[in-house]
Amino acid sequence: MILNRYERGRSFLGRLPHEGDLLKSIEGFCQENGITLGVFTALGAVKSARLAYYDQESREYRGFAVDEPMEMVSCRGNISLRDGQPIVHAHLALSDGEGRTISGHLMPGTPIFACEIFIQELLGEPLVRRQDEETGLPLWWRG
Amino acid sequence: MILNRYERGRSFLGRLPHEGDLLKSIEGFCQENGITLGVFTALGAVKSARLAYYDQESREYRGFAVDEPMEMVSCRGNISLRDGQPIVHAHLALSDGEGRTISGHLMPGTPIFACEIFIQELLGEPLVRRQDEETGLPLWWRG
Amino acid sequence: MILNRYERGRSFLGRLPHEGDLLKSIEGFCQENGITLGVFTALGAVKSARLAYYDQESREYRGFAVDEPMEMVSCRGNISLRDGQPIVHAHLALSDGEGRTISGHLMPGTPIFACEIFIQELLGEPLVRRQDEETGLPLWWRG
Repeated sequence: MILNRYERGRSFLGRLPHEGDLLKSIEGFCQENGITLGVFTALGAVKSARLAYYDQESREYRGFAVDEPMEMVSCRGNISLRDGQPIVHAHLALSDGEGRTISGHLMPGTPIFACEIFIQELLGEPLVRRQDEETGLPLWWRG
Repeated sequence: MILNRYERGRSFLGRLPHEGDLLKSIEGFCQENGITLGVFTALGAVKSARLAYYDQESREYRGFAVDEPMEMVSCRGNISLRDGQPIVHAHLALSDGEGRTISGHLMPGTPIFACEIFIQELLGEPLVRRQDEETGLPLWWRG
Repeated sequence: MILNRYERGRSFLGRLPHEGDLLKSIEGFCQENGITLGVFTALGAVKSARLAYYDQESREYRGFAVDEPMEMVSCRGNISLRDGQPIVHAHLALSDGEGRTISGHLMPGTPIFACEIFIQELLGEPLVRRQDEETGLPLWWRG
């Protein structure tokens, strides 16, 4: 278990640009503002989406597309360092006109219709993503 | 992109009244306590629900009802000003006895069975909802 | 309505142990670190899950199992006191390889594949779970 105590840094609230890529927009904001660790939540709508499911046996992400406009029910994630750059890890839940819910790991290729986001920066010991042998995933290790 | 830095204001944790309207209860608390900007998360259960999906082409919300008791898997949203009053924007995910998940934009007409809520006030430049031509939605603009 | 104002205590970010029980791992961390009130959010993946739905009429939780590896789309909850011990109340949303979403009240018996968690401690008047007659649930009362 790696569970560190952090000080709270800056808090940001606002909206991301229409038609921007959801994952890339968040990552870009963090890179421009020097946010290397934090958590965020977002809601809104997307024009379509690329999600993924991690196959725990084959140890590969299997991507799938959602090719219609959807409500963004919840998008939750965190920011940490990988290869020295802030990267975003997020899971996204979407819903259609009848409330049916489709969810997964957020991938690039998800264009924003509207997105309201709250970002909380954290300050303290870096968390760095490096390959984990047990799961095959890029998990957090102490910097 | 409008993404401002805020100071953290007051933090509230507790539960909303049984049989109260979910959206109106949160809005009422914010109005009574002078919370004009913030974010919140809630969990619990509802007796039934009114949700909506925004049709990005026709630019209208299409409402739908969930006419049975459901778990409130996640209710996430924010508080900001519209026409000078604090209003709530929230998305709600619900689940039934087999775990099937129905989600959407929270509308009035969703009676609470039990609801535990955390509200974080934010202090700084107001975010004000006004009509956005690109999306047809009441999005945030600088006050 | 019981909705108190709190000061923000410690903030923790990190990951829980592979194969640990999701609910018990969070509760254990809180007990070891003296966290008696707070909120948390987590994302990751589980090897399987035990969820429940509260039947509002019969006033019983009805459990059900999810017997396959799933993405942990969102896990949200809070920590408060029951019988003098910190306990966790959480709702969990999961998704499979096609994005289908299954959600419910988190029960013991949900083994972690990978789990990244943010915990925010709150300081102030205790919230204590005691039986509520109106709902049959262990709801919050002032300590």
